[in-house]
Order: sequence, then structure tokens, then C-alpha cells
Amino acid sequence: LVSVLSSAIIVYRLPWTWKCSKLLMKFIHAGLNTIAMILAIVSMVAVFEFHNARNIPNMYSLHSWIGLTAVIFYSLQLFLGFAVFLLPFAPVPLRAALMPIHVYSGLTIFATVIATALMGITEKLIFSLKTPAYSASPPEATFVNCLGLLLVIFGVLILWMASRSHWKRPPEENAKVLRPIGETPEGTEAESTMTDGSNADRSDLRINSEAARKQNLKLDEAGQRSTM
Amino acid sequence: LVSVLSSAIIVYRLPWTWKCSKLLMKFIHAGLNTIAMILAIVSMVAVFEFHNARNIPNMYSLHSWIGLTAVIFYSLQLFLGFAVFLLPFAPVPLRAALMPIHVYSGLTIFATVIATALMGITEKLIFSLKTPAYSASPPEATFVNCLGLLLVIFGVLILWMASRSHWKRPPEENAKVLRPIGETPEGTEAESTMTDGSNADRSDLRINSEAARKQNLKLDEAGQRSTM
Repeated sequence: LVSVLSSAIIVYRLPWTWKCSKLLMKFIHAGLNTIAMILAIVSMVAVFEFHNARNIPNMYSLHSWIGLTAVIFYSLQLFLGFAVFLLPFAPVPLRAALMPIHVYSGLTIFATVIATALMGITEKLIFSLKTPAYSASPPEATFVNCLGLLLVIFGVLILWMASRSHWKRPPEENAKVLRPIGETPEGTEAESTMTDGSNADRSDLRINSEAARKQNLKLDEAGQRSTM
Repeated sequence: LVSVLSSAIIVYRLPWTWKCSKLLMKFIHAGLNTIAMILAIVSMVAVFEFHNARNIPNMYSLHSWIGLTAVIFYSLQLFLGFAVFLLPFAPVPLRAALMPIHVYSGLTIFATVIATALMGITEKLIFSLKTPAYSASPPEATFVNCLGLLLVIFGVLILWMASRSHWKRPPEENAKVLRPIGETPEGTEAESTMTDGSNADRSDLRINSEAARKQNLKLDEAGQRSTM
């Protein structure tokens, strides 16, 4: 699950995919996330059946609460991502406005899933290791602790890759190369729409024209990222 | 601990502090982080003494492994931050190069501390609640689960504030207003140094001059953030 999730996250960050069309990459991103969602549902059903078979109450632990919250937000994220960024109906300003939220909540859900896994590992080690107990550090405990530590390192690396701006898929340039001559390069409408549309509510932050120019450039990028 | 950590993180993001000098803000950031470090050490000593008093082994759990890793990285972060960004000896290109790493590792350590707290809460609930057990969902369990959920929500909000570029302290403009006439506005040296220095190893990413221009702008910002 974590590995499918992380492939879905970094799929735009692989330089060798930058020559593929953006629509294809979006389908891969959506497809990988759908696979991860199916895996999450299958594993949740397995947990509930395991609990019921052994007469263990469901949903009592912090692990289960945070895990279920993450899955609910994940399904919301998947649905909104599909409706706004994959279907061709959402207007460009809406895509541009939602893109930073989509990116941040995706990364947050990923981090929360790792935290949930760590809590699950902790629970499982305490409940399963009895003779010798977890606190006696039997080899299994040390081994699983190492796995947990590797999971954290893995998550830190994936989030680093996903948050570096120079690993971002370059917005218009490749599109220009791949498109037939005469077609509008992607991102241009977003640029004009964004610089017109989203600055009104941020005017208090505009200290002078230099700050405003920088901000517009950033908004342009958000706009470019959100186009088909 | 988490609250001091998060105040240290968002101290540059409070618009009413943007009129204070950058050096003062740096001292506050460093001071809050030093307080958090002291609290972390005090609480670790308390845990070891509690374990020793009750004959519980130390450092056996995943919670303790990840927690200790976080504290080690945190002390490294504090030491490097002090040496590079607070003392006046580090050259501007070094500051500019280390700033994104400093920011990312700070936020990562914060998220890891929250994950460690969640594991600690899980352990404590399992070990402390016996009659009725944690799985019987006594009021204490529900209450502490809610606290854990609030901790996650709190972390998500702090990381959102810390990662929004328009909540970033504006780089040069305010400094110009505050400085005596004739002094160099901060950030200018960084700008020139950065655009000269750090592009060689990224030349493979430069598809055309438009991409390069955007990238330079981003590097400029990194440079501006890293000046005294």
C-alpha cells in the first residue's frame, strides 16, 4: 500500500516521464491511487473480519481512528482529484486554486498513513510478543523495529522528492515540443486566468510591486500545473 | 514540547513579526528551539528514570527508536542552524544551499515527533488500561484518542502554515525600509552569488531559457532567505 501510494506521488517527478503526455501521466497517477485505495479497502475488510473472528472490538484504538480518518480523506481526495483534474469540466481557475490543496493533502495523507502504520506495528508487537515479551527485545522485535525505522526513512525520502521544485515536471516547454504546430501550449490560459483572478484576496500581502511580481510568478506555476 | 516546536516553526510566518528585524526573529526561532531541546532532554531523562525505577528495559520499542533518532537529528539541526545561520561566519552561498535542507529537516523532525507521540500514546494506553482494557473503550481511552486526533490536526495545520509561500516573510522589501540609507539591502549578495554558483549541476534540467529564468528566481529566493 505505502509503495503504491508513493509511486503515485512521485510519478510526476521522474525525469524520464517528462516526455510523456500530461494526460497519460495523470491517468497513471489516478490509476496507481485507485489501486492503493482498493488495497486499503481490502486490508480494512481483512482487519474487521480478523477482529470479528477473534471477538476483538473494532475501532477502539488511536491507530484505527487515525487510519480510518486517513482513508476517508483519501477517498475524498481521490474523488475530488478525479472530478476536478481528470474530467474536462472544471474551469482552469478552480483547478489552479485547488492544486496546492490537492498536493498538500496528498502528501499529508501519505505521512499520516506512515504514522498509522507505525502505531499499528507498535500495537502488533505489544499484543503478539508474549514469551519473551516485546520489552525483552527478542530478535523479532528488533527486526520489526528496523522495518519501522526504514519506513520512516522511506517516507522522508519520498516527501523530499515530492517537495523539491526543481524535480517538478517542467510546465510548458515539453508540451510545446510534443504538440502539433498551431495548438495553444498548455498552461497559457491558466497563467492569464490566475494572474487576473486570485490576487484580490491577497492584496494585504502586497507590500510593493516587487513582492507582487514574485507572487504572480508563483501563481502562474500553480496555474500551469493544474491544466490538462 | 510540540507547542514550543511549532511556535519555533511558524515564528517567521506571523505577518505582525515582518516589521521586526530578521536577526531578532532568528534569535527568537533559535531560542524557542533551544527551549524545546531542553524540554526534550528533561522528558527523556524522566523516561529513563521511570523505566529504571520500575525495572522496565530502556530503548526496546519502535517509539523509543524513532524518538531517539528524532532527538539526535534535532540536536544536529540545532547545532548546524546555530553555526551556519546565526553565527556570522558562514558564506552566503553555503547558507543558501543549506536553507532548503534546514527547512525540510525541521518540518520532517516536527512530523516525526508527532508520529513518535502517537506511538507513545498507543503504548501508554495499552500498558496502563487493564480493567477495563483499552479494547473495551473506557472513557479515558476515548478521551486520549481524541487528544491524539487533535495532535494530528494541529500538526497538519502547522505544516500547512509553514509550507505556504505567500505566508513567507517577504525577503528584501521590509529590510530596505528599516535599514539606514546607503546600506546594502539584504539578499542582494545572495542573489548574485546564487545565480552564478549553483546552476552548473542542474544544467541537465534546463530545457530552455524560460525554465532557467524561473529556476533562477527560485534560487534567488533561497538566497534571500539565507542572509542575516
